Amino acid sequence: MLALNLDKYQPGLSVDCVILGFHQNELKALLLKMKNMDKWSLPGGFVEKDEDVDKAAVRVLQERTGLKNIFLRQFHLFGEVDRGDRGHVDGLLQKGVIGKDLYGWFKQRFVTVGYYALVEYSQVEAPQPDYFSESCEWCAINGLPDLMLDHAGILEKAHEVLKRQLNYQPIGLNLLPKRFTMPELQALYETLLGKALDRRNFQRKMLGYGILIRTGERRTGGAHKSPWLYEFDEEKYRRGLAEGLNVSW
Amino acid sequence: MLALNLDKYQPGLSVDCVILGFHQNELKALLLKMKNMDKWSLPGGFVEKDEDVDKAAVRVLQERTGLKNIFLRQFHLFGEVDRGDRGHVDGLLQKGVIGKDLYGWFKQRFVTVGYYALVEYSQVEAPQPDYFSESCEWCAINGLPDLMLDHAGILEKAHEVLKRQLNYQPIGLNLLPKRFTMPELQALYETLLGKALDRRNFQRKMLGYGILIRTGERRTGGAHKSPWLYEFDEEKYRRGLAEGLNVSW
Repeated sequence: MLALNLDKYQPGLSVDCVILGFHQNELKALLLKMKNMDKWSLPGGFVEKDEDVDKAAVRVLQERTGLKNIFLRQFHLFGEVDRGDRGHVDGLLQKGVIGKDLYGWFKQRFVTVGYYALVEYSQVEAPQPDYFSESCEWCAINGLPDLMLDHAGILEKAHEVLKRQLNYQPIGLNLLPKRFTMPELQALYETLLGKALDRRNFQRKMLGYGILIRTGERRTGGAHKSPWLYEFDEEKYRRGLAEGLNVSW
Repeated sequence: MLALNLDKYQPGLSVDCVILGFHQNELKALLLKMKNMDKWSLPGGFVEKDEDVDKAAVRVLQERTGLKNIFLRQFHLFGEVDRGDRGHVDGLLQKGVIGKDLYGWFKQRFVTVGYYALVEYSQVEAPQPDYFSESCEWCAINGLPDLMLDHAGILEKAHEVLKRQLNYQPIGLNLLPKRFTMPELQALYETLLGKALDRRNFQRKMLGYGILIRTGERRTGGAHKSPWLYEFDEEKYRRGLAEGLNVSW
């Protein structure tokens, strides 16, 4: 049975992490399958009284999935009174996952701070489930399992924020190999946006950002005309991250 | 002395509102001057136990400043353990603004949810100070008075978020007269961004958004060539708000 020193935590405040994984043109989310229940959950947890909320998110992600060194970005506070049925807490009690001492704590109203990260998921360590969970898995964004509380909405909001960021921030470093073709970069955008893009507009716009270097080499071996290989200009890429791309005012 | 039923509120959770006002090419923030103290404050307050956080922000803004019907947008949770010196609470106690019964409540750690709005400030009702405040005023963004806690940082963050939104969302409806010239629209952007923009680039980009209608009329009477009058295409404007401008992917 779980032991938890409740004096250690801020009441009514939690964090939830949306870890989106990209690999071979697939977008997946890292989810925990709850013990003895037919529901899945985002990796989340409580905030210690002497801990910054941003730091709590990093700690909670590591405790619940084993993932380390993930750069998490805060994106929204979910503050509705009714964030979905907390009936799962009764299940936790009945099945002995928690004792009566923790029932009131888990049943209280929580507002939760959403954090997200986008990672190349073959490059992160194998995720590990925690005490509450029987497994920790990458689940395809299209066709998610049944999620507890408002976690499906939290995940959807994180995906929306990510799509919006494509309009003013660069993306791709650490998600693509060091050298990549324009079709490969386009495939990344299409996966994240969930829609097809026009090839010529994509190339024009992307080159307009001024963050790509065309190497002197081409990818050979395909059936079609060999495409140029590009690299990110890392200095300009980082400036774009910090200040916005040059489409901005 | 203040009477407050502490059982009514979520512990450790507050909201703060950054109300930015635009009028005659000036950007100002609505601030409260605290009673008997040489500090100013954002309009903020607590969240009721049975109240959505978004709704608490609207209520708190009205209670503290009298402002009604303001569309507030959530932009960030400020969750650091140390959000600045809470010494002002001792002052509130010494000066009899609060009693001993409330001291512990005001001294506790709060995380605060930031909301902002941009309004044409000559069009909002005259702001009124509340119990804690001796005045409620529009203060120029350049040259703010001394603010309590981390409120200067909260205000700066709201301004940053607003500037970033100029890259993918339309702005100007309800801030400009129904018909306006391109230089007037450019002046709005320059005020919000705090920098000068190139006239020709501005016009090209703005027309590229496809949200403007050029009326058949010109503004006459100025020293220079009479500029065209424009209106927003409200349908396209609203689509741009909902889906992002057509510079987006």
